[in-house]
Amino acid sequence: MLETEFFNRAGPFELARVVEAVGGVVEGAVPAGHMIFGVAPLDSAGPEEVSFLDNKKYLSAFEVSGAGACFVEADLASRAPEGMVAIVCEQPYMALALAMRLFYPGSPPEPLISPAAHVDPGANVPATCRIEAGAVLEAGVRLGERCHVEPGAVLSANVVLGDDCHVGPQASLMCSVVGNRVWIDAGARIGTQGFGFAVGPKGAVRIPHTGRVLIADDVEIGANTTIDRGSVGDTTIGQGTMIDNQVQIAHNVTIGRGCILAGQVGLAGSSEIGDFAMLGGKSGVVNHVKVGAGAKLGALSGAAFDLEPGQTYLGQPAVLIRDFWRQQAAMRRLMKQGKGS
Amino acid sequence: MLETEFFNRAGPFELARVVEAVGGVVEGAVPAGHMIFGVAPLDSAGPEEVSFLDNKKYLSAFEVSGAGACFVEADLASRAPEGMVAIVCEQPYMALALAMRLFYPGSPPEPLISPAAHVDPGANVPATCRIEAGAVLEAGVRLGERCHVEPGAVLSANVVLGDDCHVGPQASLMCSVVGNRVWIDAGARIGTQGFGFAVGPKGAVRIPHTGRVLIADDVEIGANTTIDRGSVGDTTIGQGTMIDNQVQIAHNVTIGRGCILAGQVGLAGSSEIGDFAMLGGKSGVVNHVKVGAGAKLGALSGAAFDLEPGQTYLGQPAVLIRDFWRQQAAMRRLMKQGKGS
Amino acid sequence: MLETEFFNRAGPFELARVVEAVGGVVEGAVPAGHMIFGVAPLDSAGPEEVSFLDNKKYLSAFEVSGAGACFVEADLASRAPEGMVAIVCEQPYMALALAMRLFYPGSPPEPLISPAAHVDPGANVPATCRIEAGAVLEAGVRLGERCHVEPGAVLSANVVLGDDCHVGPQASLMCSVVGNRVWIDAGARIGTQGFGFAVGPKGAVRIPHTGRVLIADDVEIGANTTIDRGSVGDTTIGQGTMIDNQVQIAHNVTIGRGCILAGQVGLAGSSEIGDFAMLGGKSGVVNHVKVGAGAKLGALSGAAFDLEPGQTYLGQPAVLIRDFWRQQAAMRRLMKQGKGS
Repeated sequence: MLETEFFNRAGPFELARVVEAVGGVVEGAVPAGHMIFGVAPLDSAGPEEVSFLDNKKYLSAFEVSGAGACFVEADLASRAPEGMVAIVCEQPYMALALAMRLFYPGSPPEPLISPAAHVDPGANVPATCRIEAGAVLEAGVRLGERCHVEPGAVLSANVVLGDDCHVGPQASLMCSVVGNRVWIDAGARIGTQGFGFAVGPKGAVRIPHTGRVLIADDVEIGANTTIDRGSVGDTTIGQGTMIDNQVQIAHNVTIGRGCILAGQVGLAGSSEIGDFAMLGGKSGVVNHVKVGAGAKLGALSGAAFDLEPGQTYLGQPAVLIRDFWRQQAAMRRLMKQGKGS
Repeated sequence: MLETEFFNRAGPFELARVVEAVGGVVEGAVPAGHMIFGVAPLDSAGPEEVSFLDNKKYLSAFEVSGAGACFVEADLASRAPEGMVAIVCEQPYMALALAMRLFYPGSPPEPLISPAAHVDPGANVPATCRIEAGAVLEAGVRLGERCHVEPGAVLSANVVLGDDCHVGPQASLMCSVVGNRVWIDAGARIGTQGFGFAVGPKGAVRIPHTGRVLIADDVEIGANTTIDRGSVGDTTIGQGTMIDNQVQIAHNVTIGRGCILAGQVGLAGSSEIGDFAMLGGKSGVVNHVKVGAGAKLGALSGAAFDLEPGQTYLGQPAVLIRDFWRQQAAMRRLMKQGKGS
Repeated sequence: MLETEFFNRAGPFELARVVEAVGGVVEGAVPAGHMIFGVAPLDSAGPEEVSFLDNKKYLSAFEVSGAGACFVEADLASRAPEGMVAIVCEQPYMALALAMRLFYPGSPPEPLISPAAHVDPGANVPATCRIEAGAVLEAGVRLGERCHVEPGAVLSANVVLGDDCHVGPQASLMCSVVGNRVWIDAGARIGTQGFGFAVGPKGAVRIPHTGRVLIADDVEIGANTTIDRGSVGDTTIGQGTMIDNQVQIAHNVTIGRGCILAGQVGLAGSSEIGDFAMLGGKSGVVNHVKVGAGAKLGALSGAAFDLEPGQTYLGQPAVLIRDFWRQQAAMRRLMKQGKGS
């Protein structure tokens, strides 16, 4: 129960209410009066908690779990132990998400401008915003309603945020225009100058970067991620794109809508990522390379050439996934030959 | 025109002035009275803007661009559309750099010590410097002329900066001696203790790191990059070296002059990078390994052994580039055999 | 001697005292009255300094070093130059660590709550702690004895630190419970929300992350490293684990005791790292994958499947090290055939 130190939990709720919230199905009637106080992992959940089985790796933990109820796919429901109500869901992980939102509905920040914040008189901060200690808002900054700027964050001159944005501790933004409901996590660097210079006989000549970073609605940006502004033209990130921690996005990159970028991805200058593309952890895209809409690039892989829409790629340089596994199989055959000879 | 919110643009300038600034050549006479207001990408530039073609990928955009003038290599100049003045340049990207510097010449920071900055009385800050809100300068810090320390940056005790240095928002420096005209971007960590300990039968014994980070003139350090100080001896970075975002440089690394380190490069302890070496994005160098002067290491590649000067390497472990592509070709042959069998 | 600007050195000590501190052996008697003032690298050490030879790469530097004494393995001691006292040690690197701790013994921080720190009246800060300028401690924060919170660091509501912890400049912690003697370096992000959402037909639904980060005693966390808190359940790091700079640890990861994670490692959600495992620079572990106790994963390698305890792996996807080198040998044979044909 220690987690209640950090978050306020709603509830308890009748089990039937939880089942309804996630759109699940229970065989027979949902037992009335079964109160659920929260969500817990399979190995620690008790009779008044709901759990989830979203990965067969945890099937044995499921079979002995003390959870009072559990989100589970239809074909595994019969493996539920005595005393557990199996809540059949098409996507147990989505059910988890919906249940967590029931117990932790969130709320807008309590309005405040901390006396220890440094807000320039020329910044425009609606009365519904919360600005914490040590935050710096320079002249010309414009915030939408209900923005929350956490301790030590820095918004440089003229940065624009839409409504309901969150800026984590010590994140910094400059030269950026941000939409609504954007989450920027701790230590993210948005709008820094790009790594752009021309190399001539007298050495490198730096290119002034005078573009911006444009971030659409509903984007998430992870902790210590860096997004450089454009040199000439802008760096743009489309609606609903999710970006994990320590991702590096160079100047003049274009990212479409609904993309998913896992941790430590790197996108070189002027690369283009199509809508709903997925980039695995530590993968990279070379400058000026295009990743097609809906394409997937595996972890630790590198796109040195354009990727076709909807295809899945692996390896460095990245090849179609079936070719990658063929390469691996060929390598294994080759090794056996090597042993034989 | 929104970018003028973030940067002040000089000009407009006569086209002839732009051509002169970049050392370009125009067939026939440069039309007099053609005023240029700025630089823009091929797809958005208008008749009063200059653009650039530095990559054949954008040739089709060039052929229909509405730009009034464009930097272009000689052999492509004839592809310029009606109404565009082709400015022939050996290096269009260098021309872009020079034109941008014409329109955005920059200027020294306006002197200020923000009342919201925390400057120890024992710090030495010339009157030409600008220290922003929330910045912390501890005792013994010595700045050169015209340094700009952005909001929230921390300079720990006795750190030394030369003239015309820039420390981005929330960057931190300790145990470091920095030259002139060094740009340190947001969130960079310079001078942190290295990852050094001896592992014995009773577990790890940490080595106190009492060395420094020595940074020569004209170095650039990207956002959220980390540079550890030496344990015994120093970590050193040579004149004019350019370091991108999220690069990790371990204790006692030596980097020469004019090197280029792309995003997310990692250099392990005591590695040595020769002058003018180029390290591609996400590449790595093993501890105590030497990269020869002028050597190039490709993206996502790993130098497990010393690299010869002037050679280009790819792969993990890195091999000479011709061997890498031979490996790839051999793999493709092998896969075809696999299909056939 | 410039490093004394940054650190206070103890001593000088009699050479015999140094030999004793490191548990070394000197052939014949240790010359009395030979004072040692510090530790220095082979190439710059003088007669009143001790050096170390821990890597045969530096044997030639050893043979001409001016060091008054040097830690060296038994079989190389005879290569010591005239005038150098060879101090024979089983592990010269451990001897270095012990000698450095003799000359730089460290001391608890001088107690202080800077008037420029922002400490909530509801935070619990013992009088032995040091809280620097610009640091933010929110309500409910509880520190142990002798904690040092450097400039600009942020401890969000209810964070708990044990005794003798160090929080570097601008590091931030939230939703975290930390043990004793934990070192958290500059810019580290501990307890940020994880990258967790369910993707359904209407797009991504974020999962509220209400777990914590639990960090045991004697852990080190490098600069700009990120550690997400758990979604349901916690992210946990075991006693004595060492984590380098720019490491990314996702939600619900479990790391055992005494592990070593080199720079830029990435651990995806719910991965499990067994006790004393070692992960090389830039290596990655896929979500839900287990790395066995004592297993080693090489640099730039990716664990896509569970790794056996005690084994060493290389490559992407990672294979046993002997298979990796067999693959490399097979590739070389294949290339030669390609040339011949």
